[in-house]
Amino acid sequence: MPTKQKVLLLGATGATGSSILDGLLETHQFDVEVLVRPGSVEKPSVQQIKDRGVPLRVADLNASEEELVSILQGIEILISAIGPHDLLQQKTLVRAAKSAGIKRFTPCAFITIAPPQGTMLLRDEKEIIYNEIKRLELPFTVVDVGYWHQISFPCLPSGRVDYAALVPNTTIHGDGNAPNILTDIRDIGRFVSRIIADDRTLNKYVYTWGDILTENEILNVAEELSGEKVERQYESVQEMEKRLEDAQSSLSLDPTDPGKRTLVYITQYVYSKYVRQDNQPRYAKYLGYLDARELYPDFKPISFREFFTEVLDGKGKRPYGH
Amino acid sequence: MPTKQKVLLLGATGATGSSILDGLLETHQFDVEVLVRPGSVEKPSVQQIKDRGVPLRVADLNASEEELVSILQGIEILISAIGPHDLLQQKTLVRAAKSAGIKRFTPCAFITIAPPQGTMLLRDEKEIIYNEIKRLELPFTVVDVGYWHQISFPCLPSGRVDYAALVPNTTIHGDGNAPNILTDIRDIGRFVSRIIADDRTLNKYVYTWGDILTENEILNVAEELSGEKVERQYESVQEMEKRLEDAQSSLSLDPTDPGKRTLVYITQYVYSKYVRQDNQPRYAKYLGYLDARELYPDFKPISFREFFTEVLDGKGKRPYGH
Repeated sequence: MPTKQKVLLLGATGATGSSILDGLLETHQFDVEVLVRPGSVEKPSVQQIKDRGVPLRVADLNASEEELVSILQGIEILISAIGPHDLLQQKTLVRAAKSAGIKRFTPCAFITIAPPQGTMLLRDEKEIIYNEIKRLELPFTVVDVGYWHQISFPCLPSGRVDYAALVPNTTIHGDGNAPNILTDIRDIGRFVSRIIADDRTLNKYVYTWGDILTENEILNVAEELSGEKVERQYESVQEMEKRLEDAQSSLSLDPTDPGKRTLVYITQYVYSKYVRQDNQPRYAKYLGYLDARELYPDFKPISFREFFTEVLDGKGKRPYGH
Repeated sequence: MPTKQKVLLLGATGATGSSILDGLLETHQFDVEVLVRPGSVEKPSVQQIKDRGVPLRVADLNASEEELVSILQGIEILISAIGPHDLLQQKTLVRAAKSAGIKRFTPCAFITIAPPQGTMLLRDEKEIIYNEIKRLELPFTVVDVGYWHQISFPCLPSGRVDYAALVPNTTIHGDGNAPNILTDIRDIGRFVSRIIADDRTLNKYVYTWGDILTENEILNVAEELSGEKVERQYESVQEMEKRLEDAQSSLSLDPTDPGKRTLVYITQYVYSKYVRQDNQPRYAKYLGYLDARELYPDFKPISFREFFTEVLDGKGKRPYGH
């Protein structure tokens, strides 16, 4: 039997990271460890990981390259699902990964398809890390997942799906006909487990998807499955642009405020998905992405329809909720 | 007979551009026009192009997007071989190309393989343009050519190849064993003519090459063909780093000085080629480039050996010389 590949995961307690951890453990194909920051070791979410028998490696990401190299000892694959405000903290880790001979680094991507520069602040900071990876010729795979089923469904008049909604929402953006790449958050880790073990994805960008749906299609599915009629609210392109401008000008007055950054992230997602209509297969392929469903035709992702049926059955779970 | 594709070339009087013009005309496959700036129309080099029956379109690159759109009327393929100091002037042209429905834009690339960001100022500015292209989903092809045969040969003790040398040179950088992608400048246009008519290269990066040679291999060829013994001079990694630092700190005092910029370009080329050793197929493939020789196995490029034989026979030509 071949020895299992040693994978180290950073950000394992986050929404994306915990899906990745589950996906990695599920396959029994990897020796998985998680990288946690000193201040997080005692957190219940980290202790839960430890209780599942997953070894912890503790490191301050602001440590020296040398220290991080020693932390990475024996690791073959490094996956980062670091939080959106800490992306640039991956810089030293990238250099350490190169020095430590990491065979594949999967930097924190896991977002919608978007231009490399100038449209989404979140994407721009990821690009800085990708460029550092490329400068060092570090073997890499970028995995983007589109938007999650879990934050793409409308609320119903009965209120019966509100328990699972991050933000109650029945808004149609523009004409509601922009197709969007959607992945169930639980599938992220399953996709990642395939992708990181695949020679075809080395030094490539890959996107995953469970469905490609417009907001109108999503609403139709929700109405059909629930038997309820959703009252649509519309937000025009002009309104989306105005919201984006307001969020950006507010951030420009206070560039490090996490709340204001988050608001820019959210309004830029909206702008990118519904005005520019970036988050779709055509644009992903233009940008050079591989399609994970073409790579793994046997993979059966969770469809939006399956996901929403679960939510109607009371089996949904609010993202980021503990 | 199918109608010929309409190609517009910017920078046709430059070293790279004139190779591209020759290559495009040679195939009789394209309707070629050249884009010239108002101040250049009367230049002898432009008049020579006109005398070859090539129509001129005259435009100021700082004109409005609308004006540039009207200039691009009827063009299918737009190639830019703009000079190294004017790269960012392509910005409005890129937007105009999108609005005009250009089917393929080949932005000014045509350099060595190098990281997208942070190693070569020249490459960094090209990346700004590539990112703008991608933001607009403008169909594109990036073509890089490595270093030219014409600026890669050593001078001989007899002085008989000095007439063709841009700068007399017998320096070995480091240990002289860094492999480098080399293309004869006359082949650039021939490669480009193939590449821009090829569906496989749409939205891709491609590198061309006539030879992959180290400085030691180049010197061996030169000595063998000439029968002369070249006295090697060596420049250490430390010396190359020092030269680069000096050039960069000099430019930082006067960031727009063209002479200082040129010196930074040159020292960064040296650093990238011989210290980092970027300009080689392995790194090009890592970055996602296609190999033009794999795409066109029937293409017979001019080898360095053939090129240097011509130079010894007195048939060489100093680059940039008029």
